[in-house]
Amino acid sequence: MTETMDKPYVAGVDIGGQTTKIGIVDRRGDIVAQTVITSKYGADEGKKFMDSVCDAIKDLAKGVGMDQLQGVGIGAPNGNYYTGEIAFAPNLPWAKNGAVPLKKYMEGRLGVPVTLTNDANAAAMGEMKYGAALGMKNFIMITLGTGVGSGIIINGELVYGHDGFAGELGHTNVVRHNGRQCGCGKFGCLEAYASAIGVARTAREWLDSGKYDDSVLKDVDEITSKDVYEAAVKGDKLAIDVFNFTGTILGRQFADFVAFSAPEAIVVFGGLARAGDFIFKPIKEAMEASLLPIWKGKVAVIPSALKESDAAILGASALAW
Amino acid sequence: MTETMDKPYVAGVDIGGQTTKIGIVDRRGDIVAQTVITSKYGADEGKKFMDSVCDAIKDLAKGVGMDQLQGVGIGAPNGNYYTGEIAFAPNLPWAKNGAVPLKKYMEGRLGVPVTLTNDANAAAMGEMKYGAALGMKNFIMITLGTGVGSGIIINGELVYGHDGFAGELGHTNVVRHNGRQCGCGKFGCLEAYASAIGVARTAREWLDSGKYDDSVLKDVDEITSKDVYEAAVKGDKLAIDVFNFTGTILGRQFADFVAFSAPEAIVVFGGLARAGDFIFKPIKEAMEASLLPIWKGKVAVIPSALKESDAAILGASALAW
Repeated sequence: MTETMDKPYVAGVDIGGQTTKIGIVDRRGDIVAQTVITSKYGADEGKKFMDSVCDAIKDLAKGVGMDQLQGVGIGAPNGNYYTGEIAFAPNLPWAKNGAVPLKKYMEGRLGVPVTLTNDANAAAMGEMKYGAALGMKNFIMITLGTGVGSGIIINGELVYGHDGFAGELGHTNVVRHNGRQCGCGKFGCLEAYASAIGVARTAREWLDSGKYDDSVLKDVDEITSKDVYEAAVKGDKLAIDVFNFTGTILGRQFADFVAFSAPEAIVVFGGLARAGDFIFKPIKEAMEASLLPIWKGKVAVIPSALKESDAAILGASALAW
Repeated sequence: MTETMDKPYVAGVDIGGQTTKIGIVDRRGDIVAQTVITSKYGADEGKKFMDSVCDAIKDLAKGVGMDQLQGVGIGAPNGNYYTGEIAFAPNLPWAKNGAVPLKKYMEGRLGVPVTLTNDANAAAMGEMKYGAALGMKNFIMITLGTGVGSGIIINGELVYGHDGFAGELGHTNVVRHNGRQCGCGKFGCLEAYASAIGVARTAREWLDSGKYDDSVLKDVDEITSKDVYEAAVKGDKLAIDVFNFTGTILGRQFADFVAFSAPEAIVVFGGLARAGDFIFKPIKEAMEASLLPIWKGKVAVIPSALKESDAAILGASALAW
C-alpha cells in the first residue's frame, strides 16, 4: 500500500436543495465529526458556496489532522463524475444556469482528491461500502424520495456511461398511454408514480374519485406519503391500495432492470421504503411475476441498511476511498 | 507483450440451431479460412458435437499452424460466460435438458483458452472490434432476428451481471395491458413485436382486420419480414405502417435503455435492420421524443457495419483476443 492508501479518514459531502451535510468518516463507516451548512446561495455565489464547504471540511478535519484525510467525496443533484461539475441543477440557484467546477476548485483549496457524482450514485456506493450491498459486485440502488433516483453497480463499479449521466431509471416509462406528466416534462415516468409526490398524487386522485369516502385520509391538498403509511397501519383501504398500486408499478419495472444488468439485488432507500411490507410485498410479487424464468426467486429486493440520518454523508464519503 | 499476446489468429465459432459456422480470423478481421458443420445432434450427443467442432478447428488451423492460434471464441444461444456451459437451449437438442461444458471440454482437446457467451454478446464484441462500434466504450447492441437479443458494453466491457445472463432486453415490457404472449411465456415483451416473427404477426393481424384490403401482402399465413420490406419499397401502406409501428415500439424502448447506461450509440443488427430508413426513421423519431433532455440529439442509432455473412464468425472470434 502507498502512503496515500493508509490515510484513515475521508470527508463526505451531501449537497441538498436546502442544506449541505458534511462529515469526517473512518474506514469502518463511523462518522467522527459532522456539521450542516446552508446550500442557499444565489445565482452568482457558486464560489462562495464552495468556499464555505471547504472551510467546514478544514474545520471538521482539525480533530484528526487535515493530513490524515485521503480525499473528499461529494454527492449532489446533477453532479457529473467525468467533468467534476454540477450543471443545470434546477434546485440549486448557484448551479442552475451554468457549470460549477467543484472538483477543480476544491482540490485547489484542499490539496486532496475530490470525487463528485449524483446523490443516487453516492447512495449506491454507501450501500456497497457500509450497507445492505456489502460484498456485492452487481446491484441496483433505487432511491425513493421527492424524486426517484438510481445508482447502478456492475462488476463492483458505478455505471457512468458515455457522458456521466447513466442511471436515470426514475425516468423510464411505466405507463405508455395517458401517463402522468413528470417533472422532467415527459409522460408516464416511474418517478411520476413512485416518488413521494407521486404516491401522494395517487392518494389524492383516488380520494377525489369518491370511491374511498370512508378513508381516514381527508385533507386532500396536504397528503404526504408519511400520511399514507400511517393510514395503512390503521388498516385504511385507500392507503393499502395506494401502496399495492405503487409497489406493482415498481416491481414490474424492477423486472426490466433485472433483464438489463442481472443484479444480485435491488436495494431500496428513502421515505417510501420505510413503509415496510406495505410496499415491499407488492414490489416483490409484481417483480417475480414479470421476471424471465431464469431469474425467478433469485433476485433480492432489500431495504437500505444505513441509518437514514447518516446515509447521505456515508454515501458521499464512500466515493473518496 | 507476452508470447501468447503475439499469436496472430483466433477461431470464431457461431452455434446456430441448424448449422455451426467456424472460421480462423486475423487481427484485422479477415477470415482466412472457414467452414460450416451441422448443429443437429441428438439429446445424448453433446460430446459428439464438441468433437466435430474441435476437429473442424484443427483442420482449418492447419493452414496457419495450430500453434499460431491464440484462442477460441464461441457465440451460442444460452452460452454462459461464467460457467462456460450451454444449458437448457430450447433449439439445441443436445443442450436442451442439461448443461454441456464447452469451455472445459474444448480447452482440454485444443490446448488454447476457449471463451463462450451468447450470440448477441458475441455480436456486440464483433462490432466493437471490427464494426460500427470501433473505438466505442459504451454502446448497446440489439439483434433483430427470429428473436430480439442484446449485448451491452459498458466501459469497454461486456455486461454479464451476477449470473452471466445480463442483457435480455428483448424481454423487457413494451405493452402492459393485453400484450402479445412472447415465446418466453411472458406477455408484452419487445421480442413479441420487434422480432421477425413479431413483424410478420403484426402484418397478419392488420390484414385480418380488413382495413388494408388494397395491400400487396395477401398470403396471410406465409408473410415474412422480408415480404413486408419488399412491399414497403413498392409503397404499400400496410407494410409502411407495420414498420412505423414496430420502429416506434423499438425507439421508445431504446430511450429507456439510454436512461440505464447512457450509451454513445445503439447498434442494430439483423433482418429488420436491412429495411433501412423504413425502420430506422421511426426508431429515431420515437427515441428522440422519449429521451430526457440531456440526451436529445446525442445518442446515435446505427446499423451494424459487418457483412451479414461474416458477422457471426467475427463476433465470436472477437471474444478470443
